[in-house]
Amino acid sequence: MAGRIEQRIEELGLVLPQPLQVPPGLKVPLVMVRTLGKRVLVSGHGPQEADGSVAQPLGQVGADVTIEQGVEAARKVALAMLGSIQRAIGDLDRIDCWAKVFGMVNSAPGFTGQTAVINGFSEQIVEIFGEECGLATRSAVGMAALPFGIPVEVEAELQLK
Amino acid sequence: MAGRIEQRIEELGLVLPQPLQVPPGLKVPLVMVRTLGKRVLVSGHGPQEADGSVAQPLGQVGADVTIEQGVEAARKVALAMLGSIQRAIGDLDRIDCWAKVFGMVNSAPGFTGQTAVINGFSEQIVEIFGEECGLATRSAVGMAALPFGIPVEVEAELQLK
Amino acid sequence: MAGRIEQRIEELGLVLPQPLQVPPGLKVPLVMVRTLGKRVLVSGHGPQEADGSVAQPLGQVGADVTIEQGVEAARKVALAMLGSIQRAIGDLDRIDCWAKVFGMVNSAPGFTGQTAVINGFSEQIVEIFGEECGLATRSAVGMAALPFGIPVEVEAELQLK
Repeated sequence: MAGRIEQRIEELGLVLPQPLQVPPGLKVPLVMVRTLGKRVLVSGHGPQEADGSVAQPLGQVGADVTIEQGVEAARKVALAMLGSIQRAIGDLDRIDCWAKVFGMVNSAPGFTGQTAVINGFSEQIVEIFGEECGLATRSAVGMAALPFGIPVEVEAELQLK
Repeated sequence: MAGRIEQRIEELGLVLPQPLQVPPGLKVPLVMVRTLGKRVLVSGHGPQEADGSVAQPLGQVGADVTIEQGVEAARKVALAMLGSIQRAIGDLDRIDCWAKVFGMVNSAPGFTGQTAVINGFSEQIVEIFGEECGLATRSAVGMAALPFGIPVEVEAELQLK
Repeated sequence: MAGRIEQRIEELGLVLPQPLQVPPGLKVPLVMVRTLGKRVLVSGHGPQEADGSVAQPLGQVGADVTIEQGVEAARKVALAMLGSIQRAIGDLDRIDCWAKVFGMVNSAPGFTGQTAVINGFSEQIVEIFGEECGLATRSAVGMAALPFGIPVEVEAELQLK
């Protein structure tokens, strides 16, 4: 039987993507999630489609990618991350709270709307988990570049009950 | 009665700013500070004036903002962050040590003086807390952009007694 | 008598560098490592030579520095960091696992190979510690600038046994 959070995800018509399809020829010597006691550490995630492929469009927000596309990419990052966390901890109801979100926006020169872009991630998380659990400490900042040209990458830490 | 750290702040003639005045129309779905057991996680803070408004000047250090202005901005970040921590934990004497500082400098192309800029933050913290408590692990790095064009942003983790 | 990890480092013909030789005139008000219970927090480290001097070449990967040189720099960062951890905790056999790696690549405009560069760090760590202990959660991202123009900087968190 699905837990409360899994039910909420289904009610919202959302789908957690499959594991990241790593581009051919690339090694990724890392773990997506590591649990240490009650701490859940989560690697940087980019936007993924449901099948785990890297989501389009790629590029810098403010140039190749519009702010609306950046927000949408950030929402997809939230779902990709939840997929990884679910595979690691089994049941998302085990989550007590989101502790820390580090939101990175691949930023064209002069783009200063990082807050609005990363809000896509945070609003997706709050929609699923509610404010008490879903609001985390956060930074939303502008990177010179991200792997494969993804427009948004987020890493996070959560706390288990 | 003010605690030891609050007294030290007053002796130094420093003022902890009011909560950040979020620019109109912008949502910030986050918490500035989250306490988990003895851990105090702190969101990215920028430089603020005493009334909580975003401090001037804005822009990239090495172009729009001089290194001296960047150092001053970093000192203001320290005070803004202490204001948030005080509102969250009540008494700054509860702090055992500064664990981790991630210092981000909005950097013009070719600017490599991130260490000197973030020293403004670290020196302000050490001035208040002393070296044993105030010296943290740290990175001081160059960002392509920061929200609203702030020149410096710092996120941190502290440990309670 | 050298521990298991120290023996492994010697077998591989590797040398842990001396403490960072800070460039003259620069203050670094920070600690390289802070231990909090079982947590080991590690400051951002750049590539160092065996004597602790900042390793060459400097500059942005994708422009001044080739991707191969970036990978080599990332391997040197791993050794520099291990030197600092050894000085802080005494015996590297005390490490239970690598928890978190934040890998920063000083990136020329348009460079998107951050994953491959930071693999130099991760592969060096796995070579020494094995996959179970050495694989951490990770982000590999592109910075606009790093102190002194170093091409790679990594900060990390480890867990003690």
